[in-house]
Amino acid sequence: MATLNIAESIAETRNYPYNCWWVAGFGNEVGRSLLARWLLDTPVVLFRQQDGTVAALEDRCPHRQAPLSLGRLRGDTVECGYHGICFDATGRCVRVPSADAAPSFSARHFPVKEVGPFVWVWLGDASMIGSAPPPPELPWMTDPTFATRSGQMEISANYMLLKENVLDLTHFGYVHASTFQIEDWTNPPEVSGDGETVGYRQRFVNKPLAPGYAMSLGVPPGTPWNREHRGSFLSPALQEGCVDFQDPSQPERAPARFRVAHATTPVDQSHMLYFWVIARDFATVPEAMDHLVGAIRTGFDEDRVVLEAIQAQSSRGPRRVSTGERSVKADAAGIQARRIVARWMEREV
Amino acid sequence: MATLNIAESIAETRNYPYNCWWVAGFGNEVGRSLLARWLLDTPVVLFRQQDGTVAALEDRCPHRQAPLSLGRLRGDTVECGYHGICFDATGRCVRVPSADAAPSFSARHFPVKEVGPFVWVWLGDASMIGSAPPPPELPWMTDPTFATRSGQMEISANYMLLKENVLDLTHFGYVHASTFQIEDWTNPPEVSGDGETVGYRQRFVNKPLAPGYAMSLGVPPGTPWNREHRGSFLSPALQEGCVDFQDPSQPERAPARFRVAHATTPVDQSHMLYFWVIARDFATVPEAMDHLVGAIRTGFDEDRVVLEAIQAQSSRGPRRVSTGERSVKADAAGIQARRIVARWMEREV
Amino acid sequence: MATLNIAESIAETRNYPYNCWWVAGFGNEVGRSLLARWLLDTPVVLFRQQDGTVAALEDRCPHRQAPLSLGRLRGDTVECGYHGICFDATGRCVRVPSADAAPSFSARHFPVKEVGPFVWVWLGDASMIGSAPPPPELPWMTDPTFATRSGQMEISANYMLLKENVLDLTHFGYVHASTFQIEDWTNPPEVSGDGETVGYRQRFVNKPLAPGYAMSLGVPPGTPWNREHRGSFLSPALQEGCVDFQDPSQPERAPARFRVAHATTPVDQSHMLYFWVIARDFATVPEAMDHLVGAIRTGFDEDRVVLEAIQAQSSRGPRRVSTGERSVKADAAGIQARRIVARWMEREV
Repeated sequence: MATLNIAESIAETRNYPYNCWWVAGFGNEVGRSLLARWLLDTPVVLFRQQDGTVAALEDRCPHRQAPLSLGRLRGDTVECGYHGICFDATGRCVRVPSADAAPSFSARHFPVKEVGPFVWVWLGDASMIGSAPPPPELPWMTDPTFATRSGQMEISANYMLLKENVLDLTHFGYVHASTFQIEDWTNPPEVSGDGETVGYRQRFVNKPLAPGYAMSLGVPPGTPWNREHRGSFLSPALQEGCVDFQDPSQPERAPARFRVAHATTPVDQSHMLYFWVIARDFATVPEAMDHLVGAIRTGFDEDRVVLEAIQAQSSRGPRRVSTGERSVKADAAGIQARRIVARWMEREV
Repeated sequence: MATLNIAESIAETRNYPYNCWWVAGFGNEVGRSLLARWLLDTPVVLFRQQDGTVAALEDRCPHRQAPLSLGRLRGDTVECGYHGICFDATGRCVRVPSADAAPSFSARHFPVKEVGPFVWVWLGDASMIGSAPPPPELPWMTDPTFATRSGQMEISANYMLLKENVLDLTHFGYVHASTFQIEDWTNPPEVSGDGETVGYRQRFVNKPLAPGYAMSLGVPPGTPWNREHRGSFLSPALQEGCVDFQDPSQPERAPARFRVAHATTPVDQSHMLYFWVIARDFATVPEAMDHLVGAIRTGFDEDRVVLEAIQAQSSRGPRRVSTGERSVKADAAGIQARRIVARWMEREV
Repeated sequence: MATLNIAESIAETRNYPYNCWWVAGFGNEVGRSLLARWLLDTPVVLFRQQDGTVAALEDRCPHRQAPLSLGRLRGDTVECGYHGICFDATGRCVRVPSADAAPSFSARHFPVKEVGPFVWVWLGDASMIGSAPPPPELPWMTDPTFATRSGQMEISANYMLLKENVLDLTHFGYVHASTFQIEDWTNPPEVSGDGETVGYRQRFVNKPLAPGYAMSLGVPPGTPWNREHRGSFLSPALQEGCVDFQDPSQPERAPARFRVAHATTPVDQSHMLYFWVIARDFATVPEAMDHLVGAIRTGFDEDRVVLEAIQAQSSRGPRRVSTGERSVKADAAGIQARRIVARWMEREV
């Protein structure tokens, strides 16, 4: 079993599978105009049809290569902005203004699934779509018990760097020392995997709550509570994180639940789009959620700085740096994730 | 006969011939100082000698590679700005300040011809200069019956993208929908070629004049007139466009004539300098010509946006886009132009 | 004996030896925080230990490649900013917060010597350190008779371009015509070398002093004095320049002495860090030294413009320029310097 060596691969060889569902964007980004996006080094144009379903085509007119996104949406057809050639939502050419009959060529068409807040796209081999797992569903995303917020950013780093980041939260005390102030995550968590997914689980019993946690739970900072953190690599495209908070003096009460989804879609080998959704079933009033989003954005920006520094160093070439990496116990989940991705890659050779 | 596939070639293989006269600039740009320009991926420095003739040298001192254009013109010699070494207009070294005698080396010299408003330069094999066609001449450029204006821009796109743009004006209704408002160009034109040049011809009989045309002809917008558009690929360096306007109620009158020259010179494989000259023998007062120049600049900027988007998409590498192109009837002239260029390229292998 | 052809090599093949002491910075730049710098295409982090000695490590955590300079200095250990892994000044890992015992891995460590104002670093093969000459010492740098100033700049050019610049001062009359106003350097100097160093010597007897020289010596501009300029290529890393000024009417007096050190460290093949130190034993009051520094900065910027233009032209690829160079008599010292560097390169193949 080959383990992808990220140290050597992040700047060079493709380490993202084509034959996988990836998040193209949030559903509320895709409307009745043309949205252009590079995903897996492929130009994609997305739009919502009149029946509400989302369509995706290669963002390149097969006639003379103009990006279709420079054109406009007319009904359910895309009109190229250069010579007015029109394509339907399946990519079929339906009109050439300077010719009597539509020719037989097509723009490339990509299957789409809208699940919860995400628009998923299949950019791989169409014949493989049945053998791949469907987009993972996270029920809390559409559970009205939860208040939900989302956001996105482009990060100039290989997508696996973020995967590894969220699979090893011992970085809390360093990268987020001043923001999250979670200082008790010093031991590596329990890790379990089934070959296609991998998860960690870490329990904190009677531990003083960091100020942000305490405030949202309505208790003084430092109050001893129980927390259980769990995280799962669900597919190369999606990672889930969970925190359950429990007042140890009220063990009969249901835990307060925080959830986060990290969807990462490679733009290319050294850039990713990062789509995140957070939710919780406590402190759900808008002011509290606004405050949470502010803290999350600050924290994710701290991660971005580290990941981009790693990528920049790795991408700088020709260069003379040591190669290879040394792992520690806290890398166990990240290493399993690399192995899972390595198997995805092997399947499409 | 190979047809250059622009889809594959614009980002990669050279598709401009060296053994061809190319426009280096307008004569009024070249004076008694040093003008630096990259043309055909070659650094060139241009200046006007005291007798009024233009000289062109490689913009690189043969001593230690400083661009000669950092230096200055003294009489008819170029003095390098680094160590003061001087070259005459033929490139011959005539002085080394730190040595008693001038050495035998030379800067590379390029033949120049000034024809009408253009300075043409030969950057190819000097021994082939006799076998290549001379720079095409367009008599209207110096005909005092016409009012003339000119301009230039750098476009980050392969020069052939502009050639194809001006050989297929069915893009008027899309790229220039709001500016030129010429909505009747829906059929592909007649195309004829002789193997070295290719031209199109399109007649519009009793068609309502677009607002810009009507205003310049002094009639209300929408007045039915006759128009004949003609365009010719004269060489890889120069394209001509003509419009003759005729009031159908006065068939005995000479047509009102509009002319345009599109000179494109590759800077490199993905950038061009675009030099244009427009002229007409009606509405020649300065205010009317100013208005025309404003509209032309707006329109050419619209073309630039499309061409640069095509080039950017094509240049982005490593990438995963469909390759190849599909052609329609309106591409007939552009395809002939590609074939002509392919023959120029074959001749210099 | 191969002569490095800079014309061909500056943009492409490495022409700086690893097995050589290079200047990493000024001692006063390195304190109790982490200083990051790319040197010889290697990321380096520098810091001063509690005992005052300087340490240098590869600026890359062996765990997951984060630049160590993103972290912080704790005592004499560097704490990585990602997961808090700590390294001592020899690079040995001394702590992994998420593990009980420190593992056996290390960050790469580089030997350092602090000599006068410079911190020198050895980035080459550690086993070769004994066979290489030690960092050259220039006694005037620490001689209290002299007033000293220093500065640095990054120049986007190969380091050898600066070496050649300071070994051929016939460029004074062109590059620095308006600043230094030294117009009498028209003859090439005497050159002598011993195979490992090369020097020039030029005497000016009873020559009018340029305004800047005259002002600092307290005489009217144009006063005839004697000057002796000497310059030496001491190693690929360091060049020294000297000017002795003598009033010809007072031959018994000791000369007024000006000194300059040009330390150039390649960042990579087309960028260098340029560290300079100037000193003189006359006009040593702060106001006079400030004025001198202003003139020096202006002059060095004039050199930078030329060197970056040469590098830019040379780096532009794919390109079509003449190759090779032609030398003149004034290049004698620069050519010997190339040969010396070529021998350094041969020794580490």
